[in-house]
Amino acid sequence: MSPNSPDTHPTAASVPQATPSPLALPTDRELVLRVMPMPADANGNGDIFGGWIMAQVDLAGAVLPMRISRGRVATVAVNQFIFKQAVSVGDLLSFYAHVTRVGNTSVSVHVDVFAERNPANPQIVKVTDADLTYVAIDREGKPRPVPKP
Amino acid sequence: MSPNSPDTHPTAASVPQATPSPLALPTDRELVLRVMPMPADANGNGDIFGGWIMAQVDLAGAVLPMRISRGRVATVAVNQFIFKQAVSVGDLLSFYAHVTRVGNTSVSVHVDVFAERNPANPQIVKVTDADLTYVAIDREGKPRPVPKP
Amino acid sequence: MSPNSPDTHPTAASVPQATPSPLALPTDRELVLRVMPMPADANGNGDIFGGWIMAQVDLAGAVLPMRISRGRVATVAVNQFIFKQAVSVGDLLSFYAHVTRVGNTSVSVHVDVFAERNPANPQIVKVTDADLTYVAIDREGKPRPVPKP
Amino acid sequence: MSPNSPDTHPTAASVPQATPSPLALPTDRELVLRVMPMPADANGNGDIFGGWIMAQVDLAGAVLPMRISRGRVATVAVNQFIFKQAVSVGDLLSFYAHVTRVGNTSVSVHVDVFAERNPANPQIVKVTDADLTYVAIDREGKPRPVPKP
Amino acid sequence: MSPNSPDTHPTAASVPQATPSPLALPTDRELVLRVMPMPADANGNGDIFGGWIMAQVDLAGAVLPMRISRGRVATVAVNQFIFKQAVSVGDLLSFYAHVTRVGNTSVSVHVDVFAERNPANPQIVKVTDADLTYVAIDREGKPRPVPKP
Amino acid sequence: MSPNSPDTHPTAASVPQATPSPLALPTDRELVLRVMPMPADANGNGDIFGGWIMAQVDLAGAVLPMRISRGRVATVAVNQFIFKQAVSVGDLLSFYAHVTRVGNTSVSVHVDVFAERNPANPQIVKVTDADLTYVAIDREGKPRPVPKP
Repeated sequence: MSPNSPDTHPTAASVPQATPSPLALPTDRELVLRVMPMPADANGNGDIFGGWIMAQVDLAGAVLPMRISRGRVATVAVNQFIFKQAVSVGDLLSFYAHVTRVGNTSVSVHVDVFAERNPANPQIVKVTDADLTYVAIDREGKPRPVPKP
Repeated sequence: MSPNSPDTHPTAASVPQATPSPLALPTDRELVLRVMPMPADANGNGDIFGGWIMAQVDLAGAVLPMRISRGRVATVAVNQFIFKQAVSVGDLLSFYAHVTRVGNTSVSVHVDVFAERNPANPQIVKVTDADLTYVAIDREGKPRPVPKP
Repeated sequence: MSPNSPDTHPTAASVPQATPSPLALPTDRELVLRVMPMPADANGNGDIFGGWIMAQVDLAGAVLPMRISRGRVATVAVNQFIFKQAVSVGDLLSFYAHVTRVGNTSVSVHVDVFAERNPANPQIVKVTDADLTYVAIDREGKPRPVPKP
Repeated sequence: MSPNSPDTHPTAASVPQATPSPLALPTDRELVLRVMPMPADANGNGDIFGGWIMAQVDLAGAVLPMRISRGRVATVAVNQFIFKQAVSVGDLLSFYAHVTRVGNTSVSVHVDVFAERNPANPQIVKVTDADLTYVAIDREGKPRPVPKP
Repeated sequence: MSPNSPDTHPTAASVPQATPSPLALPTDRELVLRVMPMPADANGNGDIFGGWIMAQVDLAGAVLPMRISRGRVATVAVNQFIFKQAVSVGDLLSFYAHVTRVGNTSVSVHVDVFAERNPANPQIVKVTDADLTYVAIDREGKPRPVPKP
Repeated sequence: MSPNSPDTHPTAASVPQATPSPLALPTDRELVLRVMPMPADANGNGDIFGGWIMAQVDLAGAVLPMRISRGRVATVAVNQFIFKQAVSVGDLLSFYAHVTRVGNTSVSVHVDVFAERNPANPQIVKVTDADLTYVAIDREGKPRPVPKP
């Protein structure tokens, strides 16, 4: 059975559940983005669509590479997303990142996404996570060296 | 050398190049989405940001699973994206999809993205591709069986 | 009785109907745009508002004139729209175009719009069509000749 | 030569000109919408794209029919648009409407669009105009009678 | 008891009421902006969110300062907003402005916001008002003199 | 001289300056929102317009009142904004909030906004701050008591 097989364990975790496990937000990683999705970001199901979340992860992931490379970056690779929880209008989404690798012209990060929801009985749930790699680019869009610390 | 190492060959391919290899659009797969990105979709670099493209891939990928499952679907997994070419305002983006697997409650697809650009000297370039898995859901967001053909 | 009189036959056809006539999508014209409207594109009635559809027709209509004129174009004239069917969130909208006239500095096209909807019992309905004329412009926005084939 | 032939006089008028004729804004019609287009509404040329203007005309045209029919309306027909002037970010667009016909279930209006621009040397130019017909609809989207005054 | 205390009289007025006092729209001030909020502008409560209204007031307030200063302006100060009425999708919002002060490099205005709503039984209600100050700026964003009349 | 007079000291501070004083981000208040403005949020000057920032402050300010009141809130009052710094595409905006007052049905907060910019020579500048009051509302939009801790 392949680890990506969606009909075994991942699908079970892929839809909203009555009792998400309580989670605390990380304190050892930087909160690079925190947003509240609006009705304009919802899909026809009434949920926030996965593509919108992926777009935010891409923005969130760029924050540390821009700082480290001291300039522009472009996304070159994003690894697999598993969506563990649906996201709703009114959730507060927090994106935490840490750097996993600094190359000659690239910076890789890991991004974790959490949702704080249901203010009458507050919960924090893990939404998704991803590894992303950004390349530092100059004004012509060509790769440039990442400055050494 | 790992195949994901962004400082070797993938980075070389990850930024706009003077002479992209000429490509014809596929004729054996369905054109599930075709859009023209606008300035509102650009990032601070003036290019269309990767997250916007990922969001469109997610929308494009859902077209065949909605048809096959005859109802709502939610994204549960998206595999790695490699961005081979920057996308600009004015490019015409075409998203081609084919089904790779139909499970009990899920449908997987492969999506290829091409850009038609530069009308004075037209070119078609491959932008990215991805594998996505969607789960068929009912009105409560719970997985439901995909009808057998 | 004028053919535009909205209280006779056009109004009868202008709102959603229980049994739209089955239609197949065209195979002899180019699919220039294919989009899925989102809740952000809906009006206060919950339907996709007519103006949004007109905006998409304008984008769709520009695809062939840009190719033929090998550069920028601006919309100069759009003929009458008749909205035959309301469009809903979740419909897949397909825009087919063919060129109707190539002038010295302008290109005219006809655009047909179809909606694929209701995945539980799929239907394809004609939404609207329009004739549009675009003028080829240079960087200063002045008309420029359309290259002869 | 047809009066709509875009290669004769209409094209000449269809792009920005150095000296638009000075125009005063109407005082005998209602200002139903007044908006300032933003960069997010521009196309790849840097101008506000025609489709966005058509969408605003559709919204503007609905104001009087909603009042007269005392409820919801849907667009059923829009006659030809001729774009006389390009619109830029920073222009203040004014939409004036008057009712041209009240039918059993429909209301028709004429909408004129003017741009106020170039604050260093202010000008008011006519952008476009259109005739639109709206049908009064009930909660199910079915035509309903327009109340008699 | 301070006049800003939200638990005394202001809160009573701060939510939708069954019988808003009938109001006529002003005739002695300029209608600088008139817009119809769309579902994309709503918050998770289904109402138009206060921040969207503030953003529109900022755009509306800039119209007269741009005219008077004959060029670009930037917002430098906005006084208190009191939201007297919730705004809904489908309301027609009218923004009236008048100039309250012209300084060496700045122009101050007062903006009043009214909503026309409920077409079956039409009402005009005051939504909010604000005082805003704009500074005239040159291309580098530096203050420039406001021309004397 | 009134403290609001924009031609004396506030105007001097109201436009971008070559050497903003270095500031560290707060550690004793909660980071309630962190966003990166996009070109779609810019005005005709190329800067992020003040109204967009006010809208984000309104969203940011609601985070703590929603938690404390354990449900929906609506903005009832926003005090004066002074814009000390222009905001550009690519700045990372951080919104810090702390509660200033809890009433029977309302919660007041203070929000500080900082921009991190210019990755080649990083700076953190104060953009604006504001005091906002939210009222806790029930499903009908009527004020409801804030639960006592």
